[in-house]
Amino acid sequence: MSNTKVTPFEVEGRVNYDKLIKEFGVNHLDNNIKEEIKKLSEKKKIPYHIFLKRELFFAHRDFDKALKLHKEGKPFFLYTGRAPGGCMHIGHLVPFLFTKYLQDLFDCNLYIQIPDDEKFLFKQDLTLEKIEEMTQSDLADIAAIGFNPDKTFIFRNSEYIAQMYPLYLRTAKKITYSQSRNTFGFTNDSNIGQIASPAFQIIPTFFEKNLCVIPMGIDQDPYFRLQRDFAEKLGYKKNANIHSKFLSALTGPAGKMSASDPDKAILLTDEPNQVKNKVNKYAFSGGRETLEEHRKLGGNTQIDVAYQWLYYLFEEDDKKIEEIKNQYESGEMLSGEIKKILIDKINAFLEGHRTNKERAIKNKLLEKYMKTGKLAKEMFNRKF
Amino acid sequence: MSNTKVTPFEVEGRVNYDKLIKEFGVNHLDNNIKEEIKKLSEKKKIPYHIFLKRELFFAHRDFDKALKLHKEGKPFFLYTGRAPGGCMHIGHLVPFLFTKYLQDLFDCNLYIQIPDDEKFLFKQDLTLEKIEEMTQSDLADIAAIGFNPDKTFIFRNSEYIAQMYPLYLRTAKKITYSQSRNTFGFTNDSNIGQIASPAFQIIPTFFEKNLCVIPMGIDQDPYFRLQRDFAEKLGYKKNANIHSKFLSALTGPAGKMSASDPDKAILLTDEPNQVKNKVNKYAFSGGRETLEEHRKLGGNTQIDVAYQWLYYLFEEDDKKIEEIKNQYESGEMLSGEIKKILIDKINAFLEGHRTNKERAIKNKLLEKYMKTGKLAKEMFNRKF
Repeated sequence: MSNTKVTPFEVEGRVNYDKLIKEFGVNHLDNNIKEEIKKLSEKKKIPYHIFLKRELFFAHRDFDKALKLHKEGKPFFLYTGRAPGGCMHIGHLVPFLFTKYLQDLFDCNLYIQIPDDEKFLFKQDLTLEKIEEMTQSDLADIAAIGFNPDKTFIFRNSEYIAQMYPLYLRTAKKITYSQSRNTFGFTNDSNIGQIASPAFQIIPTFFEKNLCVIPMGIDQDPYFRLQRDFAEKLGYKKNANIHSKFLSALTGPAGKMSASDPDKAILLTDEPNQVKNKVNKYAFSGGRETLEEHRKLGGNTQIDVAYQWLYYLFEEDDKKIEEIKNQYESGEMLSGEIKKILIDKINAFLEGHRTNKERAIKNKLLEKYMKTGKLAKEMFNRKF
Repeated sequence: MSNTKVTPFEVEGRVNYDKLIKEFGVNHLDNNIKEEIKKLSEKKKIPYHIFLKRELFFAHRDFDKALKLHKEGKPFFLYTGRAPGGCMHIGHLVPFLFTKYLQDLFDCNLYIQIPDDEKFLFKQDLTLEKIEEMTQSDLADIAAIGFNPDKTFIFRNSEYIAQMYPLYLRTAKKITYSQSRNTFGFTNDSNIGQIASPAFQIIPTFFEKNLCVIPMGIDQDPYFRLQRDFAEKLGYKKNANIHSKFLSALTGPAGKMSASDPDKAILLTDEPNQVKNKVNKYAFSGGRETLEEHRKLGGNTQIDVAYQWLYYLFEEDDKKIEEIKNQYESGEMLSGEIKKILIDKINAFLEGHRTNKERAIKNKLLEKYMKTGKLAKEMFNRKF
């Protein structure tokens, strides 16, 4: 058992993700690549990231090119984003946490897009005023991650549109309606703003002539595959990607964690007691119906959300996660007990996030990312 | 004969324009409206405009509402535009000349859109650099018209996009792909920028909560009919229009004058000799094959471009145009002679335009329209 890889999605997951990899034409993040990142981490004295160790980030396209550039002392840059939603939950932080790791490791520029425009176009009932509110809330959480203030530019489309507009025009001119429809499933009833919006997601890949690397959930891949069809015609490079699996929602092992019902997700603003109550009440359990049965058959880590979150997000120690697995599967550890471990981990994490948020405010980090930092200043003086 | 209305498109024209009026659901510019404009012109000591007298502007939608507002001392505003093309020709000035007349008459704000973005999206081979060049050339000609510098705002979409963007989003959200496709004939191969572009043409109708009046060629009507479907839902008024017929091209009586072959159109930059040569060589003639035949049968003013241009654009004197018609139709006046009259009129007009252009440069009019004038300043400080 101790040599078996601990993978909550062992069966179901492996099949689906293999299928996705094939469908999307991407590659497994193989051992060569992971070893190289691991070595660089050791050299930089940055802990090798749990998301790689546990294969939450599991696939890529051209990420080997980024590594090669780095070895040759040449730059590449990172790009990620977040549509304003307000009330960010733990799953929303996954790409940001991993992006920070990559920025620290490769010391590169990072662009973070806030597509407030897209959110408005896709949500019938949302007003621009409501989106403004959500954006402010999200920005405070993103600033807490602690990106390099001189190499990070966070921009809202509605604020950066004047500079981006020539890139929008060049990009939109390269995408036909049928490409856009086939990729994103638009219909005759889609509004014309929605139809044009994929261009905006692609624009930041053209912020530099260097290679753009995008860490993202694998579901976002279609946007950026489209970019590869015409990037070189516009004088830029095809973008590279590093893809994550979906993290289980609190309420179940399948699908993405959703904040549309904030009662059933762990929000970054949740107090310790709320975390405790939510995990105890909603965390989907792989435990058995009765105590007797559980002791006899053991818990099922394949579907137990507490176990999965510990595995993917919180328990970095390989030995400890192995112990938890063994104890839970043997029936020695009860559902309430594994949940208790998770609750403590989440609360420690959220406590840290709150501290980081306060420090970000004190250090005016958001202002630096958006206006006054070295990269931000450059970006507002640029003509594309 | 003297009581017959002199109308070059007497037969063919009347039928087509009547059909258009019916199809588009607009109204004839009737005598009540024209009388009212005429009286106001007299009161303001501005000559009643030849474009109205000769029915080049012939139809409208809700223009009576604008007149009513004016009588009640309430404001409305004007909106027109020009896609950059460089090398403006005489036909391109028609809406601008008429718009200036309306601004002088009603003393109202005027917004002139330069959709440089749209031009780029619709012309496969044009670069943004080439469009920049064309735009500068056009702006110099538009500034020469002499609009009120404190009540006129000329803006290029690519420069004013930051301020317009919230209006773009609100507008684009109200137009579905099928509406856009049905109105403008988009196909699966249209690029996604093209599909979104109708929103930009509509935006300036929302620059004020007051009634927007758009003088335009009747072919532009579909853009603005779409606006009427949702303007009130966004808290604005349905736009009003005043429509012109098409001016004959130099080379023939049907269709719009086109500058795509600048050799065959009278450009605003043409020297007197070029005008003479072009008119003599290319102006479609209603004269007869031989001198003998012409003297016997007379010229056909219905299809003679020299006559039409004199009628619609240059010969304001009703008695004189009547004389020309009679002499030409009787065979007394030859094709070369009516062309000579036109050449002199065009050259006088172009001489005036050159003088106006120089004066506009001297008085920094363009700067006022685009940046420093009262309305321009307000527009750059506005939040929509």
